[in-house]
Amino acid sequence: MSKGITSRSEDYSQWYNDLVIKADLAEYSAVRGCMVIKPYGYGIWERIQAILDKRFKETGHSNAYFPLFIPKSFFSKEASHVEGFATECAVVTHYRLKNDGNGQIVVDEDAKLEEELIVRPTSETIIWNTYKGWIESYRDLPILVNQWANVVRWEMRTRLFLRTAEFLWQEGHTAHATKEEAVAEANQMLEVYADFAENTLALPVVRGRKTENERFAGALDTLCIEALMQDGKALQAGTSHFLGQNFAKAFDVKFTNREGKQEHVWATSWGVSTRLMGALIMAHSDDQGLVLPPKLAPIQVVIVPIYKTDEEKANIDSFVTSLQAELKSKDISVKYDDRDTQRPGFKFAEWELKGVPVRVAVGARDMQNGTVELARRDKQTKETVGQEGLSNRIQLLLEDIQQHMYQKAFDFRETHTTEVNSYEEFKQVIETKGGFVSCHWDGAVETEKRVKEETKATIRCIPLDAKDEEGVCIFTGKPSARRVLFAKAY
Amino acid sequence: MSKGITSRSEDYSQWYNDLVIKADLAEYSAVRGCMVIKPYGYGIWERIQAILDKRFKETGHSNAYFPLFIPKSFFSKEASHVEGFATECAVVTHYRLKNDGNGQIVVDEDAKLEEELIVRPTSETIIWNTYKGWIESYRDLPILVNQWANVVRWEMRTRLFLRTAEFLWQEGHTAHATKEEAVAEANQMLEVYADFAENTLALPVVRGRKTENERFAGALDTLCIEALMQDGKALQAGTSHFLGQNFAKAFDVKFTNREGKQEHVWATSWGVSTRLMGALIMAHSDDQGLVLPPKLAPIQVVIVPIYKTDEEKANIDSFVTSLQAELKSKDISVKYDDRDTQRPGFKFAEWELKGVPVRVAVGARDMQNGTVELARRDKQTKETVGQEGLSNRIQLLLEDIQQHMYQKAFDFRETHTTEVNSYEEFKQVIETKGGFVSCHWDGAVETEKRVKEETKATIRCIPLDAKDEEGVCIFTGKPSARRVLFAKAY
Repeated sequence: MSKGITSRSEDYSQWYNDLVIKADLAEYSAVRGCMVIKPYGYGIWERIQAILDKRFKETGHSNAYFPLFIPKSFFSKEASHVEGFATECAVVTHYRLKNDGNGQIVVDEDAKLEEELIVRPTSETIIWNTYKGWIESYRDLPILVNQWANVVRWEMRTRLFLRTAEFLWQEGHTAHATKEEAVAEANQMLEVYADFAENTLALPVVRGRKTENERFAGALDTLCIEALMQDGKALQAGTSHFLGQNFAKAFDVKFTNREGKQEHVWATSWGVSTRLMGALIMAHSDDQGLVLPPKLAPIQVVIVPIYKTDEEKANIDSFVTSLQAELKSKDISVKYDDRDTQRPGFKFAEWELKGVPVRVAVGARDMQNGTVELARRDKQTKETVGQEGLSNRIQLLLEDIQQHMYQKAFDFRETHTTEVNSYEEFKQVIETKGGFVSCHWDGAVETEKRVKEETKATIRCIPLDAKDEEGVCIFTGKPSARRVLFAKAY
Repeated sequence: MSKGITSRSEDYSQWYNDLVIKADLAEYSAVRGCMVIKPYGYGIWERIQAILDKRFKETGHSNAYFPLFIPKSFFSKEASHVEGFATECAVVTHYRLKNDGNGQIVVDEDAKLEEELIVRPTSETIIWNTYKGWIESYRDLPILVNQWANVVRWEMRTRLFLRTAEFLWQEGHTAHATKEEAVAEANQMLEVYADFAENTLALPVVRGRKTENERFAGALDTLCIEALMQDGKALQAGTSHFLGQNFAKAFDVKFTNREGKQEHVWATSWGVSTRLMGALIMAHSDDQGLVLPPKLAPIQVVIVPIYKTDEEKANIDSFVTSLQAELKSKDISVKYDDRDTQRPGFKFAEWELKGVPVRVAVGARDMQNGTVELARRDKQTKETVGQEGLSNRIQLLLEDIQQHMYQKAFDFRETHTTEVNSYEEFKQVIETKGGFVSCHWDGAVETEKRVKEETKATIRCIPLDAKDEEGVCIFTGKPSARRVLFAKAY
């Protein structure tokens, strides 16, 4: 099959678009900025959902569901929230269409809503309005709830998975009796995300804190995980917010504490979205297509038979049947691609494009020799190995691929994180090498804005593990106590 | 705890509302007609999703995701579809709010959409517009795709789970090369639903076909499963539609067949929704609260300790720890409710209200005697049994409860299905006893409408297993070849 994927060196952005389309992950729909997530892409998202959902439940959270629509007035209740979210969103104004008598379907002006409804861009407001009814005393706390849902943010420039008008995500919304407990929750969920990114997505991330400028609208503190893509741009892969009592105050949610006094409730929210699909693609894939980490791949092993006669095929089938059973008993997902409509070379290319970690090819001669050809997607290497003990070998190979993919991405990030001590150096690295730039910053919003205007780089985060280090801001020369990470970002 | 549930005999409708609220299943939100599904209710929905999703995948389907919004013009393309759906739906007309300068957030009239967007009430149109790009040849068929999503239908009178403006559902949309294959798919999915209803929900259903009058807007044939609630009203629990080539023609979706000729594609769609939650509640529950079939219950067994001293508690704890481990090894979900903030009686009432199938109570005297008290929710009975072999006994008990709940609902339906041969008899049964009324009907849409106007009863379905039987329509006296099922319905 002809892949038709632009190479990364030629045009990284086009490579990404080609890959998403050609690997059957997603496509644009007839609705501006909205995507269709195709079955293969959705299968990967289902794996992300299943693994995260399990971790949320292990940490005591339950799922629930809140309305798609939010009354317009709710947005005005939390001052900084409205600035961040109310501007670019889909507004429902009517609840009926009608036939205009000339065979045209038009909006029925008699069916105008008294108050416009906003299609949720995030659910803090409707959820805190609900929590008001759930919370009376400290005995009702904590509330540890998550929602898997679609949200809409009216983006003008969209890219599949990375920035779409509608996207899928999860949003956790928790309520606590104390500030300490809420802060601990926000930290815990950041670590859940970081662990998932590193151990499942094979994606090394920097755990950090956003500056005031990049903070979630309505949060007192936004924690984040930041990953580096192969083009040297950063991607925010998840956020966890400590919201203080902002939403509790906006929606008047109080509880009676153990001492019998009324207090406002403390809150967190945290989310990851289908954007993770973009991170996954851009961190690992190559010019031949997708490269999926084994722990996330919907299909971990594909088996392709190579034969000329029905007899050869029957012989291979019988071997494959027992191999499949062995792999399944080890919880390894396997697909036997014995379509008779396509040649082996076409199948090789297709599964390579779709990023299946391990390919087993077995032909008539292999059957005579008791061998198979074993290929790994990440390194693009293959070898002939014995059929004896094959499922054990594949299990180890999958672990090795997972580890190698992480290490490769980690090494890339290490070589693309540069410490600089002057603005000249800073600009040069941002413009040529890219990646994370570690430098001193004076802590001022204004400085960050100026640097962004001049270089398009933003502060991705103040790393949580940043060491105390006396220094001076590369832009203003003012004193600084620790380094921050700048980068151009998605 | 005081349950505050109206009894069924007093006011069935109020009993339902009370139960949904008090058992923490769902509540109304600040948005007209939209519900909040609370964690306990959502946990039941997650079980429904998991079990059905597995069956969809076993029958070869994959999940995907299509846009929330549908361009208005799409609805006009399939003539009967627009009549059914375009009238009562949420319409997005603008994509931005703004601050009006006086601190008020208003809709920005400069951000008016060129074409209004409909929040999907069902996705046939946007999906068939998408399938056009996926299908060229018979090799691209069949497409077997399902979507789990939220949909919006602007209902004027709403009831939690049964009829809400926004609800959650799954919608399968398949594309086939032949009529026969599409018909077989629609039949297969009806059987998946029926089997799920009967074997998981413990809900006996009639498999049937809708009359023209009740058919899905755009379908050539609508198959359904119909269940009977305890108040004698019917509830449609799932539908599977054979759409013919209607949507393929509306969206110009053709394929090249094996003979090289262009043909329109054949279609089905099928869905169940959070309405199933309503069916589940109304079919089984009693005046004490929810009664959940074991195969669906998020918690199958609750264990309540009864103790006075820490020593007694420690002794019980150690027994419970090993019981929990045994139950978990049998895939039985168990909760140990050892909250020290509530008394045993409160806990008994709470878990009864929430419908947990089996309760184990164990006190200090039980520990001396080597016994526990074992209570089953469905029959409201309890007995003292030995600790020896308890997990086996519980496993058998859960199976017995599942079976008994089905049988009870089945017997109720049998005694509430009445054959009548005159309109007088018909009216009397509909008005007094309720339930399904089996009678002859002349096949005319007009007759069905007249009967509905006069009695509020509709034809729920023409049962698939209806025997050929010569008769005359109870309303018009015209000839009829088989009986149909009438009932008042939700």
